[in-house]
Amino acid sequence: MALRARALYDFNSENPGEVSVRENEILTLYSEQDIDGWFEGANSKGERGLFPASYVEILRNDAASTFNNNSCTSSPPFTTFSAPTQPQQHPQQPQTYQQPSPGSDDDWDDDWDDSSTVADEPGTVGGRYHDFEGNGPSTYRVSTSSMARGNAQQAKSSATVSRNLNRFSTFVKSGGEAFVLGEASGFVKDGDKICVVMGQYGPEWQENPYPFACTIDDPTKQTKFKGMKSYISYKLTPTHTQNQVNRRYKHFDWLYARLVEKFPVISVPHIPEKQATGRFEEDFISKRRKGLIWWMNHMTSHPVLARCDVFQHFLSCNSTDEKAWKQGKRKAEKDEMVGANFFLTISTPAAPLDFQEVESKIDGFKTFTKRMDDSTLQLNATVNEFARKQISGFKKEYQKVGLSFKVLSQAFEIDQQAYSTGLNQAISFTGDAYESIGDYFAEQPSKDLDPIMDLLGLYQGHLANYPDIIHVQKGALTKVKESHKHVEEGKMDRAQAEGINERCNIISCATLAEIQHFHQIRVRDFKAQMQHYLQQQIAFFQKITGKLEEALQKYDNA
Amino acid sequence: MALRARALYDFNSENPGEVSVRENEILTLYSEQDIDGWFEGANSKGERGLFPASYVEILRNDAASTFNNNSCTSSPPFTTFSAPTQPQQHPQQPQTYQQPSPGSDDDWDDDWDDSSTVADEPGTVGGRYHDFEGNGPSTYRVSTSSMARGNAQQAKSSATVSRNLNRFSTFVKSGGEAFVLGEASGFVKDGDKICVVMGQYGPEWQENPYPFACTIDDPTKQTKFKGMKSYISYKLTPTHTQNQVNRRYKHFDWLYARLVEKFPVISVPHIPEKQATGRFEEDFISKRRKGLIWWMNHMTSHPVLARCDVFQHFLSCNSTDEKAWKQGKRKAEKDEMVGANFFLTISTPAAPLDFQEVESKIDGFKTFTKRMDDSTLQLNATVNEFARKQISGFKKEYQKVGLSFKVLSQAFEIDQQAYSTGLNQAISFTGDAYESIGDYFAEQPSKDLDPIMDLLGLYQGHLANYPDIIHVQKGALTKVKESHKHVEEGKMDRAQAEGINERCNIISCATLAEIQHFHQIRVRDFKAQMQHYLQQQIAFFQKITGKLEEALQKYDNA
Repeated sequence: MALRARALYDFNSENPGEVSVRENEILTLYSEQDIDGWFEGANSKGERGLFPASYVEILRNDAASTFNNNSCTSSPPFTTFSAPTQPQQHPQQPQTYQQPSPGSDDDWDDDWDDSSTVADEPGTVGGRYHDFEGNGPSTYRVSTSSMARGNAQQAKSSATVSRNLNRFSTFVKSGGEAFVLGEASGFVKDGDKICVVMGQYGPEWQENPYPFACTIDDPTKQTKFKGMKSYISYKLTPTHTQNQVNRRYKHFDWLYARLVEKFPVISVPHIPEKQATGRFEEDFISKRRKGLIWWMNHMTSHPVLARCDVFQHFLSCNSTDEKAWKQGKRKAEKDEMVGANFFLTISTPAAPLDFQEVESKIDGFKTFTKRMDDSTLQLNATVNEFARKQISGFKKEYQKVGLSFKVLSQAFEIDQQAYSTGLNQAISFTGDAYESIGDYFAEQPSKDLDPIMDLLGLYQGHLANYPDIIHVQKGALTKVKESHKHVEEGKMDRAQAEGINERCNIISCATLAEIQHFHQIRVRDFKAQMQHYLQQQIAFFQKITGKLEEALQKYDNA
Repeated sequence: MALRARALYDFNSENPGEVSVRENEILTLYSEQDIDGWFEGANSKGERGLFPASYVEILRNDAASTFNNNSCTSSPPFTTFSAPTQPQQHPQQPQTYQQPSPGSDDDWDDDWDDSSTVADEPGTVGGRYHDFEGNGPSTYRVSTSSMARGNAQQAKSSATVSRNLNRFSTFVKSGGEAFVLGEASGFVKDGDKICVVMGQYGPEWQENPYPFACTIDDPTKQTKFKGMKSYISYKLTPTHTQNQVNRRYKHFDWLYARLVEKFPVISVPHIPEKQATGRFEEDFISKRRKGLIWWMNHMTSHPVLARCDVFQHFLSCNSTDEKAWKQGKRKAEKDEMVGANFFLTISTPAAPLDFQEVESKIDGFKTFTKRMDDSTLQLNATVNEFARKQISGFKKEYQKVGLSFKVLSQAFEIDQQAYSTGLNQAISFTGDAYESIGDYFAEQPSKDLDPIMDLLGLYQGHLANYPDIIHVQKGALTKVKESHKHVEEGKMDRAQAEGINERCNIISCATLAEIQHFHQIRVRDFKAQMQHYLQQQIAFFQKITGKLEEALQKYDNA
C-alpha cells in the first residue's frame, strides 16, 4: 500500500521539480525518507514532484493525525526560507549568462548518454536537486550522492556545535558546514591536491605550471538519425594537446554542472544562455561561439578549473572514442571530491590567516562586488542603449544629411553649365559619403560595444556567484566564533575548536585565493577590452575621416 | 470741411499702413487724389491708414450716393489682387533673412536723421508704400517720388498698348511696364551706366574692374543721450579705401531699402532679420555680424550692386562727418535712376537676344529655383535637426557612456591593489574622454552646420527674390507679344513695336545677366561652404580620434 500524507499548509511550487499542495490535500509519498527536508511524491491530481517534508504529516495505517517526523512546529517553517542565502538581486540585468535549465534547449533532444546516472529530464524528480532559491545565476546543483553523504554525516554530527537551521543555506548546501564541522572525509589522491600559496597580495591559487589555451572554431551543423536530429558542433583545439575535439553545447552544459557541483568556493564562469528558437541561425551561432570563447578563456585562465580532471577529459577525450568518453563521464559523475570533500583537497600556506583580517577583506570584497555589479549593470544598460542609438538614430541622422545633400545635388544638376558640373558631382559624392557614414555607425556596435557587453555579461555571472561563495566563508567564520564561545562556556573541548579553526582557515584561504584570482582576471579582461574598444573606436572615426577626406577631394576640381 | 467717403465693402487690413473698414462705415479722406489705387484717411474709430479707393464712394456735399472716381465695378475688384505676383510660398522656411519691417527693432529708437524724406515710423502712412502683398522676403518698397513719376507717366501712356490692369503687379510696381512702354525717361550720367556684355554662357554683368571686399569687425555697444539709448556699432573696412567706418544695423536697413527700390531685376541679398529682444546678447550680436558678413560678401561680389553710389556712400562716408553723410543720404533718396529708370542705365551687347531662347532660359531657371528652393528647404530642415540632435541626443549618449565608464572606475577604485590602480585611472580617463567627446558633438554644429544654415538662409532670400525678377521679364515679353499682335492688326506702328522689342531686350539682358551672376556665386558659395563643412567635420572627427588615442595610451602602463 502506498505511503500517504496530508498537507498541513498550502505550498506553492516555485521551482522546477516542486509540486504545489493545498492544506488538507492527501498526498502520495514515494519514500518515508525525506531528502534534505523534502519529500518526493504526488499530489491528489497526480502531479509528481517535491514538497517540504515539514508541510505534511504522514498518515499511518491507523490514520491517526500524527505530525510528520521532520518538524513539530505548527507555523510554516519557511518564513525565513531564503533570506540568509539571498543573493544579490538583478532586477534590471539586461544581459547575463543564465544558468541553463534542462529541457529548454533541444540540445537535450537526443539520447546522448543513456547510461547517465543523473536524470536530466524536465519535470521528473531525480537524484539532482533543482534550484530551490529561484535565483538562476547563483545556484548550485547538488548531486544526490553528495547530499546523501551530507545526510549521513549529519547523523553523526556533534551536539556541541549548533547546526545551521536553514537547510537551504548555501553554507549547508555547498558542504561548507559539513566540512567545518569535520564531517567531510575522503581519500585525496596526489593529483587532486590543490595548493593555496601566499602571494604578494595574500593567499592565491598556485599557478598552473602548464598553462594552455583552447580555441573554439567552425561551429558546424551536424545531423544524426538520418537528418532527423540536428545540432551544432564546435571544434575545440587545446594548445597543450593540439588535438582537435568536437563538442556540442550540451557537453559544455554537462561540464558546467559538474564544475558547479565540485567547487563550492570557485566562481565557475556561466556558459552562454540556452535559447529554444533560432538555434541554427548565423547570428545566434556566432553569438554563442563568442560566449563559449569567453567561457573557455576564463576556464583555462583559472589555476584550479583549468587543471581539474573533468575539464581535461572534456578537452582531450577523442569525440569518436565513445567508450573512453563515457568512461570519463561516469568517473566525473562519481567523483567523491565534490562539495564538502573539495575542501579536503586544499593545502594552505603554513601560517594560518588572521580571521579578523580575513573578515575585513571579505567585507571589502562584498562592497566591491556590490559596486561593481551596480556599475556594470549601469554600463551595460548605457552601452546597450548607445548601440541601439547608433544602429537606429545615429544612422538615420547621417543618412538624412546624406540624402539631403543628394537632393541638393540633383536640384543643381538642372543647371547644366560646365562650371557647375564638378560641384554637383562633389555634392552628390558627399551625400553618398554621409550615407556610408550612417552605415558605419550602424555596423560599429558589433565591433566594439558587443564585446564590451559580452565582457559585462560574463562578469555579471561571476558577480552573481560571489554572494554564495562569501556566504560559505561567512558561515565557516560564524562556526569559529560559536566554537570559541562554546569553549569558553566549557561546552566544547579546545581540540575540537582548533579543528574548526583549521578548517575555517582552509575555506578562508580558498575564498581569498578565488577573490585574488577574480581581481587578476578582472584587471586583465577589462584592460584588454577597454583597449580593444578604444582601438575599434579610433579605427571607426578614422574610417569616417577617410571617407570625408575622399569627399573633400572631389571639390578640388569642382 | 473734411472730405468724407462711405465704405462699400468690408476691407480687412493685412499689412502695416493699411486700416480696416466696415461696409457703410463713414471715413475721412485726407485727399481726393488716390495713390496708385489707395486712399489715405481715417476710419470712424479714428484709425489712420490706407484702404482701397475702389472700396469706397466719396460723399459729396449733396451727400448723394455717387460712386467714387476710381472704380465703377460693383463687385470687389480685389479678387485677383495678388495672384499674378504671388511669389513662392515658404510655409516651412526654418531660417530666412526676413525683410525687416520698420518699428520692430529699436535700432530705430532714436532720431537718426530728422531730415529724412521717408517716413519710417510704424503705423503712420508716409510717402513710402508698405508691402501690400504680405510676402515679406520678396517685396519691394517703392518711394513716393518714383510712384508719382509713374503716375505722371501713366497719364501720357499710349492707348494702343494695353496696360496691366493689376496695379500691384511686380511688373507695374518695379517700373518694368513703364519702361517697356517707353514711359521712362531721365538723364543717364556716364557714372550710372551699367554694361551687360556677352560672356561664355550668355549675357553677364560687366565685371567690376576694381573689385574689393569689406570686413565687418568688432561689434561694440555704443550709447547716446547720456546712456539713455544704446545700439551696436560695426566696424566696416572696405579693402579699396582702407578707411574704417562705423555703421549700425539701421544703416544697413536703410541701404537695403534704397537698393531694393533702385534695382528691379537684381536680387538684393536680404539683410539679417530684425529682432526685438536680446539685441545686446553676445549670441545675437555674433549671429547678426555673421549675417552681415554674408550680406556684405554678396554685395561686394555683385558687379552692379558693388559699384552703385549709395553702397559706396555707405562704405566710405566718414561716420563722424554728419554733414557729408546726410548729403549722400539725401542724394540717394532723391536718386532718379530707380525702378523704371534703372533700365535706362543699361547698355546691352550689340546683337539682340532671341526671345524664344530667353523664354526657354527663364523657364529653365524658374524650374531650377523651384527645385533649389525645395532642396535647400529640405537640407535646412535636416541640418537644423542634425544640429539639434548633436547638441542634445548625441552629446547625451556620449556623456552617458563617459559617466558609466567613470562609475565603473570608481567601483574599481574600491580595490586598492597596486595592479588595479593603472586600469582604474585609465578607465576614469576614458570616461572623461567620452564626456569631452559629448561636448565636441555639442560644440560642432556652430562650426560646421551653422555656416551651412547661414548659406541656405541667404540663398533662400535670393530664391524668394527671383519670382518677382522673373515676373518683370515675363511681363516685358508679354508686351512684346502684344505689340506684335497689335502691329499685325494695324493698331500699332512698327517703330513703336520695335521700341518695345528693344526695351524688352534690355530687361532680358539684365535678367539673364543677373541669373548668370546668381549661378556663379551659387557655385562659388556652395563649393566654399561644402569644403568648409567637410574640413570642419574632418577636424572634428580627428579631434575625437586624438582624444581616444590619448585615452588608449593610458592603458599602456595600466
